[in-house]
Amino acid sequence: MNSRLLLLGAGRSASSLIQYLLRHAPTESWFLTVADANPAHLAPVLAAHSEYARAVPFDAANEAGLDGLVAQADVVISMLPALLHPVVARACVRHGRHLATASYVSPAIGELHDEAVTAGVTLLMECGLDPGLDHMSAMRVIADIRARGGVITSFKSYCGGLLAPTAEGDNPWKYKFTWNPRNVVLAGQSTAKFLENGRPRFIPYQQLFARTETVTVPDYGEFEGYANRDSLSYRAPYGLEDIPTILRGTLRRPGYCAAWHALVRLGLTDDAVNLDNPESLTWAELVAAYLPTPHLPGLDLPTRVAQYLGLTPESKEMGRLNWLGLFSDRPVGHAHATPAQLLERLLSEKWQLQPHDHDLIVMQHLFEYELNGTAHRHTSSLAVVGDDATHTAMAKTVGLPLGMAVRRLVRGELAQRGVVIPVEADLYEPILDELAAEYGIHFLEAEK
Amino acid sequence: MNSRLLLLGAGRSASSLIQYLLRHAPTESWFLTVADANPAHLAPVLAAHSEYARAVPFDAANEAGLDGLVAQADVVISMLPALLHPVVARACVRHGRHLATASYVSPAIGELHDEAVTAGVTLLMECGLDPGLDHMSAMRVIADIRARGGVITSFKSYCGGLLAPTAEGDNPWKYKFTWNPRNVVLAGQSTAKFLENGRPRFIPYQQLFARTETVTVPDYGEFEGYANRDSLSYRAPYGLEDIPTILRGTLRRPGYCAAWHALVRLGLTDDAVNLDNPESLTWAELVAAYLPTPHLPGLDLPTRVAQYLGLTPESKEMGRLNWLGLFSDRPVGHAHATPAQLLERLLSEKWQLQPHDHDLIVMQHLFEYELNGTAHRHTSSLAVVGDDATHTAMAKTVGLPLGMAVRRLVRGELAQRGVVIPVEADLYEPILDELAAEYGIHFLEAEK
Repeated sequence: MNSRLLLLGAGRSASSLIQYLLRHAPTESWFLTVADANPAHLAPVLAAHSEYARAVPFDAANEAGLDGLVAQADVVISMLPALLHPVVARACVRHGRHLATASYVSPAIGELHDEAVTAGVTLLMECGLDPGLDHMSAMRVIADIRARGGVITSFKSYCGGLLAPTAEGDNPWKYKFTWNPRNVVLAGQSTAKFLENGRPRFIPYQQLFARTETVTVPDYGEFEGYANRDSLSYRAPYGLEDIPTILRGTLRRPGYCAAWHALVRLGLTDDAVNLDNPESLTWAELVAAYLPTPHLPGLDLPTRVAQYLGLTPESKEMGRLNWLGLFSDRPVGHAHATPAQLLERLLSEKWQLQPHDHDLIVMQHLFEYELNGTAHRHTSSLAVVGDDATHTAMAKTVGLPLGMAVRRLVRGELAQRGVVIPVEADLYEPILDELAAEYGIHFLEAEK
Repeated sequence: MNSRLLLLGAGRSASSLIQYLLRHAPTESWFLTVADANPAHLAPVLAAHSEYARAVPFDAANEAGLDGLVAQADVVISMLPALLHPVVARACVRHGRHLATASYVSPAIGELHDEAVTAGVTLLMECGLDPGLDHMSAMRVIADIRARGGVITSFKSYCGGLLAPTAEGDNPWKYKFTWNPRNVVLAGQSTAKFLENGRPRFIPYQQLFARTETVTVPDYGEFEGYANRDSLSYRAPYGLEDIPTILRGTLRRPGYCAAWHALVRLGLTDDAVNLDNPESLTWAELVAAYLPTPHLPGLDLPTRVAQYLGLTPESKEMGRLNWLGLFSDRPVGHAHATPAQLLERLLSEKWQLQPHDHDLIVMQHLFEYELNGTAHRHTSSLAVVGDDATHTAMAKTVGLPLGMAVRRLVRGELAQRGVVIPVEADLYEPILDELAAEYGIHFLEAEK
């Protein structure tokens, strides 16, 4: 008997997921319905697979339409924005359908756990890259250390969506958007919290990009990591409640964070104030407006900005700001905006991924543990380069683990009901094996 | 015929308003209903006035109850939290009753303008101190300069709720709470915007308390002013659309802002992160958790904080932090809180107004204008000391202008309908005169 799969949302980042589902549909006896706001763009992809796949129009605001689609499916996969997942999950519970997503378990999703268990429904969340592959790869190492009788004393884990070295070009930030630009501009706008040697550690936003750690990934060189908002929430799901040191962070190429720190200090990442600015305001005027003495005769703007920030005009940080055009007479081009909105607009142009660019996903876990009275270190490193502009490293590392998790779910290989994340071996082991064997996506494990 | 006045909300800050309304009720033929969540505390105040005043219980969450009270009144006065004013204002429009408050015209209130005009209702907003007395006193000077043919080129205006010099004692901050503590802790947490010499100026939160101006008030010495969030919004109501320089600010005693800046830099005013802290965490541990290197052997915490902030351990800023107990082993006493919540809890104890303390309201407007080709300066200064712990300067300067505005409204001396603020001479002139003649509350005008 055919299983009916419903994929909600088929934006750019769903490309590798759709490819995976189409690849396995004939052998697994799936019929795939892809529901998207704009199904026309799916026609060329699905054309050769019409016996077991179709596209239908879908309006996320139409709850009755969602209900009808969910009712006709056996398993629902959602690549919709995370905000929509409570609505989708409630429809799944109502109709007794399993759900799989790459999004975090939000409080609203968490509240559905008991109801989902009663309905015999699995809400399989956090099955993409981060969250997703991070859980799977870390838990494999954690389980191995535990099986050998080791006690983990430190867990630091970093992930970043960056550029393959060939795509970095002369962009001094060595960064382009492969993910939601708004999230990148607003990254870290709350105090970061983590643990070090059993003590709480807090980094306020204004210091976040100045307090980075260097991370070295085999074959890809050095990166710098800044702390994520909440590293503490990983303790419970990983069974590391008493771990003295835990930190989650985001990776950038060296130099990015110091230059971003300059943008934060200037005030250009603030999203809380409407500047009442005219569209004709220039970037130079905007930057000058933030200086304590906006107009000093005889000193040009970059020199005054450098003085204000305690940098030299020739510094790499100032070079990066200049490369963005912050000191130019170009209009900000957007009226009544927040500084963060203006910055996002500028960066979306400067940091636009080009069709020939290859992206890079980097992840590294650093473990310290004690075994038989001696201290050990273990490092797990992953680097994935995108195939092309469609099958980016981001699309592959988000979509393939999700597709593989769905395959297990449809096959009935997952017994857990309610809200589930991939921290159990029976789910993550076959996925990590399939990623390595079929796609060459595997972690380099190093014991020191 | 009696006019029926309804006062909604009779907290501490309503004391002088109630006294004013009771004083004029017999001669103005008013019957006053005071509706409060806890009417028992009003009994001693109203006992001697039972022929023309009564207290009734009132639950702001009960919209039917509100409706019944509004229906039975001719004029409604609200001292409820500003968030409740849209509900109150809609009830007033529905029943054709005038409303007077000391709160800002929020967007939700502004939207009621046309409806209120149609219903023949006046929604008289911003009639307290700030907003209120600031509008009235500034507009008197602005109107006078205009009448003489002058053109205003600069308007800076500061206000602060502080302590009478006798109440400052050995508190090095020279500050106690005479207003909502939460608002004081969260003050300025957005970019401040103003105009200087025709150019936009922005100050990000992280720099706000480091960029102050000194303000001197006759007989009360020096204060320092930090910029308020939005100085630009005062241009339209004051008819100063083309003014090159406009700034609104808040006053503190010298030294307060530099020490507050240290709290901001440490990260202790952040209200966006739940620290997941235990109640037993000490202040010293909390502060240490924010340092880049939380534990250095051989250096005590104040020394490390001073180094981090670029201060000397003997500096006045460090003295103020120490006076608060930031380096003590005292528990923060509040679990799962934001830093701002913990700070508010600590300050509420350290900065608690005592029964014998007198508060101080200070306001100063600084005008620059051109008249007959020459530049002039005009300064308006106000200082009001509280009578006692009940009739504080805050209660008087908020309640008396509001009471006087209500008197004009009930008498039918205010022809404007819809949303109104006190920027017209026919409203503010009699109020400013009455404040000076009856209460000695008057601005010192100085022309330079």
